[in-house]
Amino acid sequence: MLELKFDPRKGIFAKEIETVEKLARDFFGDRKKNEISLLPEEAMYLMLFRNAVVLDRKGKEIDFNSLAKNFVGEEPRLFIRYNAYRDWRDRGLVTRRFNENVQGKHSKKTYKKYPSQKLRPERLRAKAYWYPDSLFSVLDKESVGKELFEKYWIGQYGVYKQERGKQSKLDFFETIFLAKHFGIEIVNNETGERMKPEEILKEVVKKREYAKQLYDIYEDWRMKAYVVKTGFKFGSHFRIYFPGASPVKEDKWIHSKHVLHVFPKEQKLLISEWSRAVRVAHGVKKTFILGIPELKKKDYIDCQADFMTYRRKKGKGVWVRETPKDKPRYMLVSVSEDEHIGGVELASMLKKAKDTGLNLLLSITDRETSITYYELKKIILPKSKYEYYEIEWFKP
Amino acid sequence: MLELKFDPRKGIFAKEIETVEKLARDFFGDRKKNEISLLPEEAMYLMLFRNAVVLDRKGKEIDFNSLAKNFVGEEPRLFIRYNAYRDWRDRGLVTRRFNENVQGKHSKKTYKKYPSQKLRPERLRAKAYWYPDSLFSVLDKESVGKELFEKYWIGQYGVYKQERGKQSKLDFFETIFLAKHFGIEIVNNETGERMKPEEILKEVVKKREYAKQLYDIYEDWRMKAYVVKTGFKFGSHFRIYFPGASPVKEDKWIHSKHVLHVFPKEQKLLISEWSRAVRVAHGVKKTFILGIPELKKKDYIDCQADFMTYRRKKGKGVWVRETPKDKPRYMLVSVSEDEHIGGVELASMLKKAKDTGLNLLLSITDRETSITYYELKKIILPKSKYEYYEIEWFKP
Repeated sequence: MLELKFDPRKGIFAKEIETVEKLARDFFGDRKKNEISLLPEEAMYLMLFRNAVVLDRKGKEIDFNSLAKNFVGEEPRLFIRYNAYRDWRDRGLVTRRFNENVQGKHSKKTYKKYPSQKLRPERLRAKAYWYPDSLFSVLDKESVGKELFEKYWIGQYGVYKQERGKQSKLDFFETIFLAKHFGIEIVNNETGERMKPEEILKEVVKKREYAKQLYDIYEDWRMKAYVVKTGFKFGSHFRIYFPGASPVKEDKWIHSKHVLHVFPKEQKLLISEWSRAVRVAHGVKKTFILGIPELKKKDYIDCQADFMTYRRKKGKGVWVRETPKDKPRYMLVSVSEDEHIGGVELASMLKKAKDTGLNLLLSITDRETSITYYELKKIILPKSKYEYYEIEWFKP
Repeated sequence: MLELKFDPRKGIFAKEIETVEKLARDFFGDRKKNEISLLPEEAMYLMLFRNAVVLDRKGKEIDFNSLAKNFVGEEPRLFIRYNAYRDWRDRGLVTRRFNENVQGKHSKKTYKKYPSQKLRPERLRAKAYWYPDSLFSVLDKESVGKELFEKYWIGQYGVYKQERGKQSKLDFFETIFLAKHFGIEIVNNETGERMKPEEILKEVVKKREYAKQLYDIYEDWRMKAYVVKTGFKFGSHFRIYFPGASPVKEDKWIHSKHVLHVFPKEQKLLISEWSRAVRVAHGVKKTFILGIPELKKKDYIDCQADFMTYRRKKGKGVWVRETPKDKPRYMLVSVSEDEHIGGVELASMLKKAKDTGLNLLLSITDRETSITYYELKKIILPKSKYEYYEIEWFKP
């Protein structure tokens, strides 16, 4: 039996020699000579899963809730953090409280670099008639519509996935983009007035929240010769195709492999909603890319970081767990499905992870205390000024 | 060639006898003797897919955008509506503008009735220690936790899906529900104070939007002996099991077949976000149930209804399309992925559909003008005062 002690001035610790040895061997707590001090989540875990008892100064046993009571004021999210700790430990792996000064395993890691070309827009003479409340425009020239569709996959020429119809419909991103870069004229089909691309955007912003941020991301990828189409069927803002993709070149329809979702820096999202978008992409086997536009250096905040965690390595032909003698791999942030997350927070977490050479893991506790992990990896879109990350479901 | 005419005072019509006959045979427009008057979406469709020409009073041909210009002021969402019309017609099916006075095919339909039992809560003596920022509580008595889990599937006893651990964790719905109906005492583990269930709810509402509405729905199903657990893994608020389900009775883990999502009446959601939740459920082969709490008679509004549509029937051994000589089947509401929908609007649509004996179809135009259909069917949860609907992906 493990014997722990709790003293309100000193915290939780172990002195009993057998306990100290056992805890040290399993990388619990911080050892100083013959004493080990423990974090609340460590003690809570030891009580529930390693048969530990915690005694107060008078030698009386303290239960889980009574022990937690001493810490919950200072650590309001104690239970969520504890639950993340529990899950990682339950998998036979080691985890420690996060430490700013750590040098993680991935400090020299180069990020995945996406291909990039320079789009060379041409000047085209055509008019796009704008339907203000429908947020669509219709091109007046079939030939231009056909060219834009076949060469750039801009607009929808004819019926989706059918070789039928000759009308070219442009969504609001395409309408603005073509006006800005291809010289297409826009005419408001309600009033007959000419409109500038920025006027269209201003109109759309009134109806569709975050339209500006979405457009910025759209333009960023388009200018690097990516094809960017709606991701509606995959639960995301966009789906993308790498430079060179065309709706007509191949015998059969080519499938996108990536969806692109925009997380405006000022938006706060419920974790459950945020995760839902990743989940749909995962379900249809697409890589989920998150883009955070408009981030400036001053936006970054000092954000939450709960744990640094170790995983497994190959040792003498078998997989063994890594320990604090190895470099940690992940910065783990523990949240619950009913909390919120913001674009700035997420970007700041990623920066903190990067600065310490760790990969970022988000552990989400659902209402049943079951945990889902997502790994976030920064990617490089050459010459982009925005931040992009691949998010993947992760199994420790 | 079909010859249509446009007169600003009169609208769009056809007089040329061959055209009139052809259109009448295919159920376009309204015939009065030897003339047929057409709706803008009908004329637009005929121009693009049936080679129709539209002539102005001087006999000059009018193009798509010029014709639309005359209608877009009065029908701001003209293009979205047209696109829904196009898609239905493209499938070889008939659709007409919605008419309030129609008697649809489903007027005598009885709704799907869900089973219902009366939950008989017992009085239990135990304390739940509440962790305010984690939104969880931990029971003090293992025996009570075990009973609640095994008999009612309330709380998470031990580790999720493992027979390990004896602690019982309660999410905030369960904490409130147990305090209200089972006499469980709640103690704030930060302050040591006793809390009433309504105090907990008040606290949660500050952190988690719509917690009250979610709790109401939770309680509604629980009181009818359903098991209601988090739907996090399926992208919804809850998953449910029919009365009698237990986490321990069977040899293997039983799977839920329904997810339950709450749409508060005052919430406005982007269609794309709304659809994302349905999409995840569909992807994991669960029935998606939408609940709208707190609706009162006075909440219903006069909502949008675009079309009444016909489908197919068996005629002499083959499937033939239905026509206006049959009763229409669906009330079709056309929206785009970038529009918003509210709980009240949706409920009002469902009521309008019900009043006219039609089933409700939502057609969503994405930015590529491709259409996704969802069918909404009212279900009956006996003795509930809330509205519930099954939502299913639909192929015309």
